[in-house]
Amino acid sequence: MNKYITEFIGTFFLVLTIGCTVLAGQAGVIPPLAIGAALMVMIFAGGHISGAHYNPAVTLAVFLRGKCDAKDVLPYWISQILGASAAAAAATFLTGKTGEGAAIANVPQAFLAEFLFTFALAYVVLNVATAKANAGNSFYGLAIGFTVMTGAFAVGHISGGAFNPAVAVGVAIMKLTAPAGIWLHIVADLLGGAAAALAFKALSKADAS
Amino acid sequence: MNKYITEFIGTFFLVLTIGCTVLAGQAGVIPPLAIGAALMVMIFAGGHISGAHYNPAVTLAVFLRGKCDAKDVLPYWISQILGASAAAAAATFLTGKTGEGAAIANVPQAFLAEFLFTFALAYVVLNVATAKANAGNSFYGLAIGFTVMTGAFAVGHISGGAFNPAVAVGVAIMKLTAPAGIWLHIVADLLGGAAAALAFKALSKADAS
Amino acid sequence: MNKYITEFIGTFFLVLTIGCTVLAGQAGVIPPLAIGAALMVMIFAGGHISGAHYNPAVTLAVFLRGKCDAKDVLPYWISQILGASAAAAAATFLTGKTGEGAAIANVPQAFLAEFLFTFALAYVVLNVATAKANAGNSFYGLAIGFTVMTGAFAVGHISGGAFNPAVAVGVAIMKLTAPAGIWLHIVADLLGGAAAALAFKALSKADAS
Amino acid sequence: MNKYITEFIGTFFLVLTIGCTVLAGQAGVIPPLAIGAALMVMIFAGGHISGAHYNPAVTLAVFLRGKCDAKDVLPYWISQILGASAAAAAATFLTGKTGEGAAIANVPQAFLAEFLFTFALAYVVLNVATAKANAGNSFYGLAIGFTVMTGAFAVGHISGGAFNPAVAVGVAIMKLTAPAGIWLHIVADLLGGAAAALAFKALSKADAS
Repeated sequence: MNKYITEFIGTFFLVLTIGCTVLAGQAGVIPPLAIGAALMVMIFAGGHISGAHYNPAVTLAVFLRGKCDAKDVLPYWISQILGASAAAAAATFLTGKTGEGAAIANVPQAFLAEFLFTFALAYVVLNVATAKANAGNSFYGLAIGFTVMTGAFAVGHISGGAFNPAVAVGVAIMKLTAPAGIWLHIVADLLGGAAAALAFKALSKADAS
Repeated sequence: MNKYITEFIGTFFLVLTIGCTVLAGQAGVIPPLAIGAALMVMIFAGGHISGAHYNPAVTLAVFLRGKCDAKDVLPYWISQILGASAAAAAATFLTGKTGEGAAIANVPQAFLAEFLFTFALAYVVLNVATAKANAGNSFYGLAIGFTVMTGAFAVGHISGGAFNPAVAVGVAIMKLTAPAGIWLHIVADLLGGAAAALAFKALSKADAS
Repeated sequence: MNKYITEFIGTFFLVLTIGCTVLAGQAGVIPPLAIGAALMVMIFAGGHISGAHYNPAVTLAVFLRGKCDAKDVLPYWISQILGASAAAAAATFLTGKTGEGAAIANVPQAFLAEFLFTFALAYVVLNVATAKANAGNSFYGLAIGFTVMTGAFAVGHISGGAFNPAVAVGVAIMKLTAPAGIWLHIVADLLGGAAAALAFKALSKADAS
Repeated sequence: MNKYITEFIGTFFLVLTIGCTVLAGQAGVIPPLAIGAALMVMIFAGGHISGAHYNPAVTLAVFLRGKCDAKDVLPYWISQILGASAAAAAATFLTGKTGEGAAIANVPQAFLAEFLFTFALAYVVLNVATAKANAGNSFYGLAIGFTVMTGAFAVGHISGGAFNPAVAVGVAIMKLTAPAGIWLHIVADLLGGAAAALAFKALSKADAS
């Protein structure tokens, strides 16, 4: 149970940071830097309890790689989505605003953008947080958080830059994206996570045993 | 006594950075990045001496979690407030300016914002700096400093983004906030710190023993 | 083979980040910060598999320093150039744009800029990732990634800020630079990497044995 | 001799980054972030060889604290000043520009600003790089580099933000400051470094023995 609460808290502060920066109209460097930092600090705080996924696509990748029990997958997903939803409500209250629900302009571009950077995110997670060669390192949160920051800078203007189905739910609740576009984030992000698990298992045979 | 001087020095440079950036009219990315970095470097420098709280709400959280002696709480608070007050005087001299004492626009929003991010800050502190599983890590200062940076980006425009009663005193002396609003930061921030201590003890039973 | 795929993936995301930020017209802090972060996270992810060069000049430097087998040099270079080329195609598709192929304005200035910062990059790599005194550290990716960020801020406006022949190929494919200028990046960057290897071997005799 | 060359290289890239960003007219976040990062990466690269001072005030502080041989102090200072001077020449060539030699507007404010942040810098250096309790950490370069970034954000507009007599020489050569003001940086910065050594020895008795 502690693991699920930890997933709720971490996803809550990740989505709260997204909502409070973007709804308030902050632009440029601020949202990606704040969002990457929010993820980083929550990973450093919660990693020793739950593994600090805060992302259904990451949970899928860690499960496929063999470091998350099957019985934890669904509770993790639910905790993440509840955390994102609560954060969406909190950010709406704190800023007194909702977004305008912009639709995705170009679906193939957005799909590839989400797939590629969710692959990058899960690839980084599996290597820095589950590879034997990197046991005991002090950089895992920095690496994972700044992967999301990088993706947000690179393709945030194309896909919204979720790389995370729970985030996609949260931003849809805040009307920062059109609810009709949620399927894209869910499908592309879970595919990206699954592809990263396959890549990790192929490239790190010693770890996969 | 060395612990108290270390708390004075760390809080001094944290509040000096706040004052010098904000009084000089710097905006956007600069104040949150500078403030988060100031806290980070002072934590890395002073952590081995005093634990590097630099924040009465953090001292309360660490005390409730059982890693700060009762006899140190009041001297820590006094050292932090003296450091913040000296920094306010120094920043006023260095910039030749004071603020205009803006009042908080919306008290419930500001209260929740301060409570949530002070909770996040103390939650990160307790996990990265006092959890057995994270002993000897090299990321504690980065995690704690960047939590404050994240909070300043997310809700600085709502509550001022103190997350720290000593900072609230310092910014009131510099007239960056209205003195009448200080109670909000003190109450919300101490409540946030206390709530984080409860959460830590519930989620990390092995550590709490 | 896993090493070569890892080099492909890391160089792919480095050049993808360059393309997606610069082609989309992002300016100021964003491209250097995103590019440095992309390199950092891919180094933390892939370092334990391939050494995480993602750069023919770095591979040359590591080879000259004696930590890369001669038989790996050409496959590493090919993997890096293929990764950069694939990323150029992906970034062009994702943004729907290509650049205008600006020529280098001043060749001697650009040559020196590329030489100096590729020297700095390879000097940092050799010291943080191959010196015995730094074995097991958690900062190597941060140090290497932020060297490229620093160089991009310092001389990006002079030379384009590649410091990496594979990146030079990728940005030429995206027409962010004129193809005629590619020789400069290749020659200056390989010279910079070779000079760093000589400097390392002279300054770190204990490591060079 | 290797130590002196390492000090030359590190100070060279620190001052090169200052010159190339500031002479090119970059403003806001860029110079402090680039300068702090340049210092950070050169510290991570050279720390194991020379201690990575790159700053006469830091060398003074480390000497007073007992971790730098008396016979090294002068050669370190000379290496640092030569590195800064060479970088000033390189940056002038690379950008094709020099500054306008602005005089310091308010000497007491500038003196206090330089003193305080050079104190902070040397205080951080001594604690993160020479305290027994922090042996083997991976954060020393991040802490030191980001102290300079913080100081540049906080008081760069007041004193120029050198915190380093060698940097003061380099920026005077590039005409970014008036040569007549160099004494202020030398005196205030050496005093700040010396004060930090006294503070360290008082606060860290176990280390000072």
